[in-house]
Amino acid sequence: MYELSAKPIVLKLGGSVITRKERPLTPNLGAIRRLASEISSAEAAPLVVVHGGGSFGHPLAKRYAIKEGYKGKGSQAFGFAETHQAMVTLNKLVVDALIHKNAPAVAVSPSSCIVTKSGRIHTMLEEPLKKLLQTGFVPVLYGDAVLDSDLGFTILSGDQLTAYLAMSLNAERIVVGIDVDGLYTADPKTDSSARLISHVTLKELKNMQQQIEEAKVTDVTGGMLGKIEELIPPIEKGIAALIVNAAKPKNVYKALKGERVFGTLISKF
Amino acid sequence: MYELSAKPIVLKLGGSVITRKERPLTPNLGAIRRLASEISSAEAAPLVVVHGGGSFGHPLAKRYAIKEGYKGKGSQAFGFAETHQAMVTLNKLVVDALIHKNAPAVAVSPSSCIVTKSGRIHTMLEEPLKKLLQTGFVPVLYGDAVLDSDLGFTILSGDQLTAYLAMSLNAERIVVGIDVDGLYTADPKTDSSARLISHVTLKELKNMQQQIEEAKVTDVTGGMLGKIEELIPPIEKGIAALIVNAAKPKNVYKALKGERVFGTLISKF
Repeated sequence: MYELSAKPIVLKLGGSVITRKERPLTPNLGAIRRLASEISSAEAAPLVVVHGGGSFGHPLAKRYAIKEGYKGKGSQAFGFAETHQAMVTLNKLVVDALIHKNAPAVAVSPSSCIVTKSGRIHTMLEEPLKKLLQTGFVPVLYGDAVLDSDLGFTILSGDQLTAYLAMSLNAERIVVGIDVDGLYTADPKTDSSARLISHVTLKELKNMQQQIEEAKVTDVTGGMLGKIEELIPPIEKGIAALIVNAAKPKNVYKALKGERVFGTLISKF
Repeated sequence: MYELSAKPIVLKLGGSVITRKERPLTPNLGAIRRLASEISSAEAAPLVVVHGGGSFGHPLAKRYAIKEGYKGKGSQAFGFAETHQAMVTLNKLVVDALIHKNAPAVAVSPSSCIVTKSGRIHTMLEEPLKKLLQTGFVPVLYGDAVLDSDLGFTILSGDQLTAYLAMSLNAERIVVGIDVDGLYTADPKTDSSARLISHVTLKELKNMQQQIEEAKVTDVTGGMLGKIEELIPPIEKGIAALIVNAAKPKNVYKALKGERVFGTLISKF
């Protein structure tokens, strides 16, 4: 029923790239406009964009403990309303920028079409999203405050949503644009010998995880292993994930174009 | 599964009340804030709000002929993206105002959870909406540019959505806030003897419609009969609709409170 001309790319834009992390409810408009221009000029189709919350989502979600579920207090319900509305606000800036750069972007509100169960996506009406892709639109989703059948409500992370969509849409690949270059052999902030890992297989990645767990040390790779946990199921299905630094110009453009780019490719083999 | 404490009220706010009709993409912020205050202080629960597009929706939808469906042209697809985004913008103003007045309002995006078939609602994921109501939130929906399984895309009017929700949620009643007082015996703009009809039954309404059709004259009631066409199915199911002038202060408040108000009540008997 929903035949796509090609397998879609799912692009995740980290909240720390498109917002000013240190200032609540402050967008990084320069980064949003530059990324909108890169996405539009790359003309990758079909394409789904998912963005994180950064300083729009995290402070509010944390203050009201939205992720932990509804405890029956009015103030917390109000926090849910505010958190969702903050994400709508950030999403509007991203979609406005894409439309301004001539990309036919359409906002898709996760909390309107997804219900989670104990924090994991349980029900999603995928028909609107699939029809948007089929018609040539660029759907733009985001990490959101969503209803949950066990918890009342919770937070659906952009990472979980990215992985879910990659699998349900049988994506060609995932591009993850964050504010670091990718996976390092050591923490580049403290170790000058740290080198970027340009390619890692799932088996190598799991070995790295195990070493870290056994040694009970902090994640020496720059905190990246925890962040990519959600990507493992799609990678196991053969959908490779490319991590690039979206805070640096041209990386997202090159990644969408399939050009060589500085970053870390994680693939099954 | 979704037990509500009481039957919900579905409140429709006409686009001509919350926008400046004559100026494209111009909200009537004074009216939006006043109505947000009236809705919040009425404390009607459960409550669903649906608003129209006014000068945000109609000019764009008309320019790109969105209602007629997708004809395969890129410019028209772009128009769909712009129309939806304009409605997101208007909806954000309404929801922001409600939250500001301490109503736990949550935006629900119709195009994210509804697919129409030849212009009529065919598929809707109602679970998020019902869970929002159950938790005490005020979901706020709107007339929207939506995907359509036959037409590619189309316009879903706020009126159709209002009637659909009233039926699927088994609403207690519908309140329609527009920019006229209700149904008149003649056109109040041209006939000084025109009197407001405070109550009309469905049978009387249908007789009025028939007379107008047979006489092949324009709708003497002030153009209201066409506008309430969508309300007939819920009224037939016993869900009364009260039309009030939302451009005048306190009418929406009184209607939500169940107080006597100047307007037209349409009921089955």
